[in-house]
This record gives sequence, structure tokens and C-alpha cells, in this order.
Amino acid sequence: MSATLKQIDLSNISTIALGSTILGTGGGGDPYIGRLMAETAIRACGPVPLIDPDDVPDDAFTFMVGMMGAPAVIVEKPPSGLECLVAIEALERRFGRKITHISCLEAGGINAMIPIAAAARLGLPLIDADGMGRAFPELQMLLPTLDGIRATPMSLVDEKGNCLIIETGTNRAAEAFARNATVEMGATAMLAFYPMSGAQVRQSTVLRTYDMAFRIGRALREARTAHRDPVAEVAAQLGGAAIFSGKVTDIRRRTLAGFSRGEATLDGLGLWTGHSLRLDFQNEFLVATRDEEVVVTTPDLICMVDAQTGEPVTAETLRYGQRLAAIGAPCHERWRSPEGLKIVGPGYFGYDCRYTPFPSSRV
Amino acid sequence: MSATLKQIDLSNISTIALGSTILGTGGGGDPYIGRLMAETAIRACGPVPLIDPDDVPDDAFTFMVGMMGAPAVIVEKPPSGLECLVAIEALERRFGRKITHISCLEAGGINAMIPIAAAARLGLPLIDADGMGRAFPELQMLLPTLDGIRATPMSLVDEKGNCLIIETGTNRAAEAFARNATVEMGATAMLAFYPMSGAQVRQSTVLRTYDMAFRIGRALREARTAHRDPVAEVAAQLGGAAIFSGKVTDIRRRTLAGFSRGEATLDGLGLWTGHSLRLDFQNEFLVATRDEEVVVTTPDLICMVDAQTGEPVTAETLRYGQRLAAIGAPCHERWRSPEGLKIVGPGYFGYDCRYTPFPSSRV
Repeated sequence: MSATLKQIDLSNISTIALGSTILGTGGGGDPYIGRLMAETAIRACGPVPLIDPDDVPDDAFTFMVGMMGAPAVIVEKPPSGLECLVAIEALERRFGRKITHISCLEAGGINAMIPIAAAARLGLPLIDADGMGRAFPELQMLLPTLDGIRATPMSLVDEKGNCLIIETGTNRAAEAFARNATVEMGATAMLAFYPMSGAQVRQSTVLRTYDMAFRIGRALREARTAHRDPVAEVAAQLGGAAIFSGKVTDIRRRTLAGFSRGEATLDGLGLWTGHSLRLDFQNEFLVATRDEEVVVTTPDLICMVDAQTGEPVTAETLRYGQRLAAIGAPCHERWRSPEGLKIVGPGYFGYDCRYTPFPSSRV
Repeated sequence: MSATLKQIDLSNISTIALGSTILGTGGGGDPYIGRLMAETAIRACGPVPLIDPDDVPDDAFTFMVGMMGAPAVIVEKPPSGLECLVAIEALERRFGRKITHISCLEAGGINAMIPIAAAARLGLPLIDADGMGRAFPELQMLLPTLDGIRATPMSLVDEKGNCLIIETGTNRAAEAFARNATVEMGATAMLAFYPMSGAQVRQSTVLRTYDMAFRIGRALREARTAHRDPVAEVAAQLGGAAIFSGKVTDIRRRTLAGFSRGEATLDGLGLWTGHSLRLDFQNEFLVATRDEEVVVTTPDLICMVDAQTGEPVTAETLRYGQRLAAIGAPCHERWRSPEGLKIVGPGYFGYDCRYTPFPSSRV
């Protein structure tokens, strides 16, 4: 399958941002800020060529670029969009070599937008792929990790001119060092990491992410225009299903060690009256428990959207009284392997529940 | 004044180690481990040429090398002596340039020995100078900071193959990032930092440190052989004076955020019977309070030695029942400036006392 989207420009960026916010499963940072960064860069420097993974040369040299930190803080301390260039430059200096393509680390929110901004500013093509096929909160949680590809050497920079080049024995250690430094940087930092060849990207990432985001965003908008149910359309694009609809009645959140963690409760409406849904999140929505039954868990996707408009809601924008629908959808198949579940399954995050692939026969 | 010591070899290394442990004012790490590292390197690779600062070419290129972390942990996790070469190599790669000389960051304990080991292993000369003229617990607390010389780019490595290159806007920020990473590395790390020219070393460091350490160690040994008072001899070499003699009756210590912190109390003996001394330390001995009077504070030197033999005692080896003498001695004059006191005075460490230069007329 070849992607239909050939470039990212002002005509499609907001649709892509909308779709990637849904893929972000509540995390990945504020989509509005990310979209502004990408739009500003495109306006200044022109559209970004989006390269299908099949068309990337084997010997291409690429980094993933993005932002690390607590989304709640990103909202208060928005990046200028230029810090990521400093991160790229620092890592290029480490290698003594310029990159040929920009890559995306996660499909969600701001981190789907930063690579667009970086590609526009540097005049480089963007590879239509990402490391997760959704968003996850830690930097070792990328498919390349499953193939033994190192996240490091990586660069981490802030707006105060601080820059770290980190090289570690494991991607888990890279996460630990980068997380500590991010906290020191004021809970957000820009990074460039996972140096890879074109062949590695094709082999070890989730392919055609931007195309998927565009299709989700487009389906959502078309459903609204045509007065069809946007929730059902989004669920169909994701190959998933609506699992709940209700009103937010309780939220607890805290920013801890560079993460936004918390729980929310929804009381059912309509079809779900008399039932409740509990959401556990750590940047992303990770476990959905309906009444007493765990219905969806990480690594499968839990997407929260406005029950009427289908507009996605992130974990930080979750508020008392919102009427939301919850969509469950399958993750990339490689996350469902024993090695995948070891690094992104519910047990890793400390949740005491077993992973059952969604949709299961019980839904 | 030109130094008398021209090289460091097996004939003088233990005397230098003894003297530098006194200059370490209780910190700088275990002197025994440091001496072993330096002796092993000299045995394997030969003596180290010690270069008087006056003889260092202006365009020499040098880093300081040493270890960061809690001395209490260094004792449990001794370095192999080769990690510092990894730190130097990583920083040389950052600059794309080899260093011509090795420099010493602090006069105390293990960090006076690591540069000797590094110089021996790399076949490089060692500059007879250091950044403090004593030991201090944080990496911005070097005289070069007062002259606006940057600690970064710096490298930080551990024995597990983790390596960070840190570049910051301020030396205080470098301390924060490196301290966090050190904690992540298991509370100790090897580092190379303060890239300087020969002209900068001559201008902005404490000159002829190794020569001073050798003279202190030699005076101590000669006093023992000649049955003179070793405490008085050491105090004379330091230009200071004995301020107390007594028995350790109380010690509290904790390893916190990569530091060894604590307090000790001594009950007076002999001349000081009926009096007490309280010592506050944070890696180094920082405040000495006799009865209710603050007698010596950082940045002046507080050296604790065995009351009979003059053998120095570090903050980690302080034990109940030890009979010790306390020596106060003046620090390098630049530390006494308002800018110096701002970064190493008692207020910086959170002690509620004013700095009065020692010896004052009251002693």
C-alpha cells in the first residue's frame, strides 16, 4: 500500500493535526501549540515533502525529533519551534554528518507536528512513519527498541542554551538520563534521537502515520459535514469500536517526575446510563475500566473524543462535566508480542491487569 | 616562586596523597583508593612529568579530570581508574582535538590522584595547579568560574558505558545537570571539564598545588620521625593554627542527592577540656563552631587530623571515639572576594553565619 499524501502544507496540516491528536490517545502534548509551530514553519519556509517509506533510500540518515516532558507544562511553556533545530544540529555535530530526512517519534499531538516544523525549517523531506503508531510516555517505547536499535547518541536541549549529548548502553537508561535532565530543564526539553538509516526506518517503525492521521481527520470532518456519527467514523478508521459514552464526574491529576499522571471517572449517558468508566493515564490514556471490567489496556489505543463532535480530548484538557465517547482500537501488531508487552504492557506502568487484545469477543 | 617537585613517581606519590588529603578538608573522596589508582597507573606507564604553571605554553589545551559524587559511595564502588580516560576521550571527540596537558580540579583526596593516573596512562604532563586550592562539593566552585571560564562542554561517564556531553549557559546549571546524571549513574561518575588554554590555567587556578601537598605530607612525616608535634607542623605549612583537640562523641550523616552531609560533635581534651566543637560538613568540613562561637567557615580550610599522628581524617571516616585535632587555615585570597564568597561562602551552603577570615585576631 502506498500513501496518498505527498506533501504537508497549509491545506492539510490542520486535518493531520486533528487525526494525530486522536492517535495520541490523550498524550503527545497540546495539539494546538504543535499545529501553530508547524503552520508557522510552513508559512515561513514552504510545504514539506512527505516521503513514503518505500521511497526512502537505504542509506538515508535520519533522526527522530520531538519534545520530552509533562504535557501540562508544555501548555504553560510553549516551545518556539526553533529549539528542535538546535537539538538536530547538536546531534549532527556528534556524528560529523548532516541528516538527509526527518523522522517522527510518535503519532500523537505535538510530537507529530514538531518533525513537520523541523523539516520545513531545514528544507528536508519527512518520512511518513513514526516510532509508536500512537503516543507513549517514555522514550524507549518505540518499535526500534524491539529490534535492538539504540535511541542514542541523542541530544536534549532547552530554551536557555543548555544542551546534553547522551549515550547509553540501553534505551531504558537513555530514558532515565533524559527524564532527569528534562526535569532540570523545567519539565520540557527538545530532543533528537534514534539515529537510523532509511533501511532501518522501513524495517522498524510504524509506516504511513501521517497518511493515517490525515485519513482520520478527514473522516471526522466529513462525518460532521454530512451529519453522520463522527465517533463511529473515527472508530472505523482506527479499526476499533466505541466502548463508552458519558460525563466526566471526577478527575485527579498530578505532575510527577516529568509526567502527568492521574485518573478520571465518567458516568454513563444514553446507552451507557447506569454504568461508569474509569480512565487511568500517564501522559496517555492507558487503562479503561468499564464498571469492574478492564476493557482496553495499553498498548491498544484508548481515544477520548467529544460525544457530539468527535473532537479529541487530551489528558490535560479533560475537565469535569465534559460529555465524551471512548474509543478502543488495536495497536501495531508488534506491540502485542511478549517483547512488546514487556515494555509497553499494563504491567510496565504498574497496573495490575492482564493485556487482552482489543477488540476482544467480549466487546 | 618555582616549584621544587618535577615529577610524580612511586617515591613521592604517597607523600603527595597524604598532603592532598589534608588539603581536601574532609572531602574529595577516599585517599587510599585514589593513591592506589595513581600508583597502579605509574607502575604500568611510568612517572608523570609535573609542569610548573610558568612553563605551560599559552596555547596548551587542557581539561580537568576527576570524579563527581558522594564519597561514601566511592568507597563502596571504587573506580577502576580507566573510566577517566573514557571521559577525556569523549570530550576530545567533542572538540575534535587532543589535549596536551592534564589539569586537576581540586586539591583533595581522590580528585588530586585521578589526574596523576590519567596523565600516566595517556603519557601526558600534569600541570601543577588545581581549581580550588582545597576541595569543595560542587563543580561550579572553581576559581575559573570567577573569571567567567565555562565548565562546559564537559563529559560525564560511568562504568556501565553511559556517557553524557553537557553544555550549559552557566557553571551552576552544569552542576545541576551533572549532579542529576551522577545520581542516575549510581552516585558516582567520572568527568572531564573546564576546557582551558595554558594561559587560562596560569591566570585562573591555584598554582603549585602538588608541590604544596608534597610539602605538607613531608612535614607531617618528618615531624613524626623527629618526635615533633605533627599537628603544629601541618598547621604551619598551611599558614593556619590548631583550633581544637577532642574526642568525637556524636556523628550524624546522610547521603542525599549525591552528597554526604552531616554534623559531628567533639568533646574537648587537654587544653580544650570542658569545651566542645561542632563540625558541619557537606562532603567537606564547612563550619567549625567552638562552644557557641563560629571559629572557621568555608571557604577557609578546616582540616581534621589524628591528635597524635597528624593523619588526616575525612568526613566519611569520622568515627565515634576518635581523638582528633582541628586545624583552621586561610583559603586562596580570591575566594575571600565578594564574588568568591557568593559561590563558596557559608551562606551558599545554607549556614546561618557570617564569614570572618581565619586566622582572625580572636583565635
